[in-house]
Amino acid sequence: MMRNLKLEIEYDGTDFCGWQIQPEVRTVQAEMEKALLQLTNEIIRVTAAGRTDSGVHATGQVINFKTASHLPDHVFRAALNSMLPRDIRVVSAVEVDEEFSARFSARSRTYRYYIINKPVAIGRQYTWYFGEKLNLSLMQEACRIIIDSHDFQSFCQVGADVDHYLCNVSDASWRQENDNLLFEITANRFLHNMVRILVGTLVKIGKESITLPQFQAIINAKDRTVAGPTAPPQGLFLTRVMY
Amino acid sequence: MMRNLKLEIEYDGTDFCGWQIQPEVRTVQAEMEKALLQLTNEIIRVTAAGRTDSGVHATGQVINFKTASHLPDHVFRAALNSMLPRDIRVVSAVEVDEEFSARFSARSRTYRYYIINKPVAIGRQYTWYFGEKLNLSLMQEACRIIIDSHDFQSFCQVGADVDHYLCNVSDASWRQENDNLLFEITANRFLHNMVRILVGTLVKIGKESITLPQFQAIINAKDRTVAGPTAPPQGLFLTRVMY
Repeated sequence: MMRNLKLEIEYDGTDFCGWQIQPEVRTVQAEMEKALLQLTNEIIRVTAAGRTDSGVHATGQVINFKTASHLPDHVFRAALNSMLPRDIRVVSAVEVDEEFSARFSARSRTYRYYIINKPVAIGRQYTWYFGEKLNLSLMQEACRIIIDSHDFQSFCQVGADVDHYLCNVSDASWRQENDNLLFEITANRFLHNMVRILVGTLVKIGKESITLPQFQAIINAKDRTVAGPTAPPQGLFLTRVMY
Repeated sequence: MMRNLKLEIEYDGTDFCGWQIQPEVRTVQAEMEKALLQLTNEIIRVTAAGRTDSGVHATGQVINFKTASHLPDHVFRAALNSMLPRDIRVVSAVEVDEEFSARFSARSRTYRYYIINKPVAIGRQYTWYFGEKLNLSLMQEACRIIIDSHDFQSFCQVGADVDHYLCNVSDASWRQENDNLLFEITANRFLHNMVRILVGTLVKIGKESITLPQFQAIINAKDRTVAGPTAPPQGLFLTRVMY
């Protein structure tokens, strides 16, 4: 009888070509499946809540997989942590109902994006250095426009394989956290590069190079070419998945 | 007429073999002098307040050097940041009196050491993962024994080239900072590996494997072999130098 295990994992995306397994490059999924093979002697395919891109981090990624192993849950956590490279850690492991899918059962995902205004050496892998002054209250105003259900095609990488672009954003806000500006957004689903394109566009509002009505017009246009640039990956973290 | 410049710098020690220039390895001093040569066309020797070891970080290292360059102070900062690798940043640059030495004029230096109790991927380069429970109040008690002038030979790497082992510790304390335990210590001078050997010994008090009277006896012994192990470098930061 196969068990279904749910793991919460954390990883530093700096040295990974993203989550998804691909030939000849280092990915988080490949490292996870390699460690699971070593532990269980089974060829295991894992499913993640969010397939993060190259350079993107996670503190609350959730994955699941089926296994015939009888190892207790806490042993899975400790044994995997001894086998995995240091830039991936298993935070928790728990057996769940066989119907559970880390990807399809997820009700919401939360991402954070960090921006720093001063040049730093320590933690430079975890934030976007942006040297210009930003008007935080205008960026906060723009969040009110984002919240709720909208078609986010303007904030989706061209060529993404999706049926539709509708996302329900339940929360979006900016705040100061130590030396960083922190953007936090929760939605039922995210399109490819959506958070990074949103940040690249919100920063243009913060620089006062576009207005709030122009931002509204960008949403309405449903056209990637009118939105701002894609912010770099290292500021982005998948922080929480709710089921 | 030569000018004397004082720079405050930050660096991520992960990929450096410490501060001091050595043949064939990457050091912070070598990278600084290379950038200064590129900027000024002068062969410049820089002096640092603290010669940090391999893997040790700095957020408040201070250096000085003599130059014939007439570039304004703020240009030094910006130009060096454009030439230096991303793991070194110049925080400030200011011209000072010709007598000033980053090393010999320093009245006190402050170091921090971070310990984390849970396994992490994000920020693992900046903290020591220590899985056992620590009694913080006992470790805090031990700090009271450290403060003031003592002979710290028990906490100095054997073979260090020093005249004497007397250090005046003006402040030492532990506190919780988010998920980390943070040790902060300020003294007029530090011996080689002193903070790391202190941390390695204080952690034994925290584990309750040695008592406070035993800790006092370790200080009195003036013998490196009776103190605890040297804690790993990645938890250590040089954070402030006072003049």
